[in-house]
Amino acid sequence: MASRRLLHSAKALSLSAARPAVRRSAPALTSVRAVSSFVAGEPEAPVMKTSLPGPVSKGKIASLDSVFDTRNISILTDYNKSVGNYIVDADGNVLLDAFAQIASIPLGYANPALIEVAKTPAMINAIVSRPALGNFPPEDWEEVLKTGLLRASPKGLDKVFTAMTGSDANETAYKAAFIWRRQQERGGYDVDFTAEEMASSMNNEAPGAANGLSILSFKGGFHGRLFGSLSTTRSKPIHKLDIPAFDWPQASFPSLRYPLDQFEAENAAAEQACLAEVESLITTYHNKPAAVVVEPIQSEGGDNHASPAFFRGLRALTKKHNVLFIVDEVQTGVGATGKFWAHDHWDLETPPDMVTFSKKAQAAGFYYTNPELRPNKAYRQFNTWMGDPVRALLFKGIFEEIEKHDLVAHTARVGDYLFGEIEKTLAPKFPGQFENLRGKNMGTFLAFDHPKRDAFVKRVKELGVNIGGSGEATVRLRPMLIFEKGHADILLAALEKAASE
Amino acid sequence: MASRRLLHSAKALSLSAARPAVRRSAPALTSVRAVSSFVAGEPEAPVMKTSLPGPVSKGKIASLDSVFDTRNISILTDYNKSVGNYIVDADGNVLLDAFAQIASIPLGYANPALIEVAKTPAMINAIVSRPALGNFPPEDWEEVLKTGLLRASPKGLDKVFTAMTGSDANETAYKAAFIWRRQQERGGYDVDFTAEEMASSMNNEAPGAANGLSILSFKGGFHGRLFGSLSTTRSKPIHKLDIPAFDWPQASFPSLRYPLDQFEAENAAAEQACLAEVESLITTYHNKPAAVVVEPIQSEGGDNHASPAFFRGLRALTKKHNVLFIVDEVQTGVGATGKFWAHDHWDLETPPDMVTFSKKAQAAGFYYTNPELRPNKAYRQFNTWMGDPVRALLFKGIFEEIEKHDLVAHTARVGDYLFGEIEKTLAPKFPGQFENLRGKNMGTFLAFDHPKRDAFVKRVKELGVNIGGSGEATVRLRPMLIFEKGHADILLAALEKAASE
Repeated sequence: MASRRLLHSAKALSLSAARPAVRRSAPALTSVRAVSSFVAGEPEAPVMKTSLPGPVSKGKIASLDSVFDTRNISILTDYNKSVGNYIVDADGNVLLDAFAQIASIPLGYANPALIEVAKTPAMINAIVSRPALGNFPPEDWEEVLKTGLLRASPKGLDKVFTAMTGSDANETAYKAAFIWRRQQERGGYDVDFTAEEMASSMNNEAPGAANGLSILSFKGGFHGRLFGSLSTTRSKPIHKLDIPAFDWPQASFPSLRYPLDQFEAENAAAEQACLAEVESLITTYHNKPAAVVVEPIQSEGGDNHASPAFFRGLRALTKKHNVLFIVDEVQTGVGATGKFWAHDHWDLETPPDMVTFSKKAQAAGFYYTNPELRPNKAYRQFNTWMGDPVRALLFKGIFEEIEKHDLVAHTARVGDYLFGEIEKTLAPKFPGQFENLRGKNMGTFLAFDHPKRDAFVKRVKELGVNIGGSGEATVRLRPMLIFEKGHADILLAALEKAASE
Repeated sequence: MASRRLLHSAKALSLSAARPAVRRSAPALTSVRAVSSFVAGEPEAPVMKTSLPGPVSKGKIASLDSVFDTRNISILTDYNKSVGNYIVDADGNVLLDAFAQIASIPLGYANPALIEVAKTPAMINAIVSRPALGNFPPEDWEEVLKTGLLRASPKGLDKVFTAMTGSDANETAYKAAFIWRRQQERGGYDVDFTAEEMASSMNNEAPGAANGLSILSFKGGFHGRLFGSLSTTRSKPIHKLDIPAFDWPQASFPSLRYPLDQFEAENAAAEQACLAEVESLITTYHNKPAAVVVEPIQSEGGDNHASPAFFRGLRALTKKHNVLFIVDEVQTGVGATGKFWAHDHWDLETPPDMVTFSKKAQAAGFYYTNPELRPNKAYRQFNTWMGDPVRALLFKGIFEEIEKHDLVAHTARVGDYLFGEIEKTLAPKFPGQFENLRGKNMGTFLAFDHPKRDAFVKRVKELGVNIGGSGEATVRLRPMLIFEKGHADILLAALEKAASE
């Protein structure tokens, strides 16, 4: 494992040439060090010079605030110095990054293979002569898709609709679902609209607007923050307050008790109860669900897991009631769970109707296979950009590196190690601080609850490891796919030190 | 005018080195030729080898269709061969492009200055180490904004919220408006939420969800196709059918009679009637408007214009009733109207509250200045990407080229020429075919109605000039900012030939 190197040549190092050497001699706040097998030039340990934010960051943030909202800033980052698993801030603090731009960097900062992709004429061309993909796609668009996004297609899905962001991907999937369902109600895929439908649609009224339909989502779910996606997001009030929302139903998501092997019957019953609630909402909610959308792991909502049996049950229910099954893999996709797609863990009999993606894919969109999820007429699903060839090309590079270095299997192994160390060493040693550990056999997509979550996360960052929170009391780990056992040891040391204080 | 050249060196030509020479000897379908003052290596005239789509395009489109919806395709494009004002298709047809990726290419294909921007370490870094801008912005983000997007700020607006697309930009502006209004209703910017608001928001219900508020838009307006933006879009049924929509009000947009100087009193009365309708909806609509959104020229909806007086009246009404005024410059912004922002034509007493942008800006977002349009707490306006540094860097390059070559003034001059030729030569010569000519003193942002619009547009394309349609019967011209008098002559010749047949 991990004996190959991504970085070989001086050429590949061109971006880092201007990068001042990281002060290897400065003591890390924990004594653990690790040499990356994948990334030449990566620091061997975090180096913290200041508290966070340091004085330089503070000054720059204050100045930036006059033109740009800075209140969400976690780390003012120097991307010219960030490399591999390490993020460097404006004060020169060097942190091991186990959060990765909210789970969105797959292969590390300044990845040399992706730098080469970024320098290709195809990429330069995609930046400078950006196409409106729906009207004027590049003549090699099929090749770009087939050598990239479509090589990564979830099993059973062979077509893709490209979009710009995770929210956008979900909303286009929802639109496909509404159009599909309304065509069925209208009498079939090819049946034309009535004059009344045409006229009422222009007034935002039924029957032209599908105001009697809905998307069913789960309490705790997060699917984005545009108006349609936000109507399915049920994570926190701060995400939803003061924004108009559609009258769409929400079902309870299983609230499993941990450790799982001690609560098997109870958890199975909880999942059955949720499925019964889903079925009840599908059959009785006044705005009838055209689709159910679910995350394989509710990420923003607190890293809530459910069993493969639950998801198989959900697939069966949606099939039974002719409701589409949309799996939102925006955060879970692209390898971090130890499978390329998290729903690969479920062993479904029939694939989801649509799988949405963004974040670590860098590109965004949804996969599907049923031709009737393509609306019956042109311009029903359309916008100016319809995706971004820059990110489609980048995805191709990302996928090739993942395959070349077998990074999904690698991440499964590193995740098993990290989970085991937290479970067997930290949790018993610090009772109450590593509660409800989630993510067994789910790669590095790990989480646990901590009674003083915010203070704990802050302290771990001060120790030089960037981690995140989710839900109310959850610590979420979202390392990149080049995160190794040695990095896990640094993370574990920081968690231990913070827990011990 | 136009004596400078953007292209000077072999280095700048690196992308076009691999480009096969355009067959200059093939006869153009019209005899007009033009040498670009701005772009070395640009064809001198269209070259049509096949009908559209040609056999190669047809084959590739058929194959692509198995994985990607191809029914909206206009031209399957070879971007490696497209240069300057000319787009080349997969069959080698060379068309003068007066549509520019739905009004989204500002400076021509393979622009050498932008190629240099695309090759910079900063750009490569932005592609490979893509930040989640809200949490981890680059330490030089303020500089990127201040040397780019903020140099182009509309008068009176000094802050920017970056987004990913025009729809996204509009929806974030709408969210800012709803949050702003609900804080006022709550008693002020700093007043906290009630427990009831927090709880009801999670159920998509009032008072937590602002279901009693709305965005007022205009009949014929287009503001995007996500769920919130689509609720304000009132262009065509095909854009709206089968998608749930919010119960938001629409006002009539002035339907001016042309030529304007013959219908001054009638048009002024029509505009007053529309303003009265706006005021009535603001004061009486059951879901109270938090904002009015309007395009300076309704573009997708058929190139509908209104006078500066109308827009000043709209600004006055929104001020009077404490409703926000959002100007959607997604299509009109960045120079094509002969001003950098189309609303610069209005001579407003107070600036709009928000101005949204995308398309030719390549970057997207909204400008604002009132600090209370930034929500009172962090994470109320937030998402993973929060914009795209790739496009922020590109915008900086675009803006610098526009300034360097004074391309806005240039476009005003070319537009005046083109308008004059259509008005004085084509319209009288072909009665009924260049009806309701719009865009006098509005740069190259021109349009006219044609009784057989679709066939006419198709024929002009076959003659080697790519133009577009909007609304039901309108031909819209959307050249780039490097479109010159010579290109206008080629366009005019194609229009004349098509009209004469």
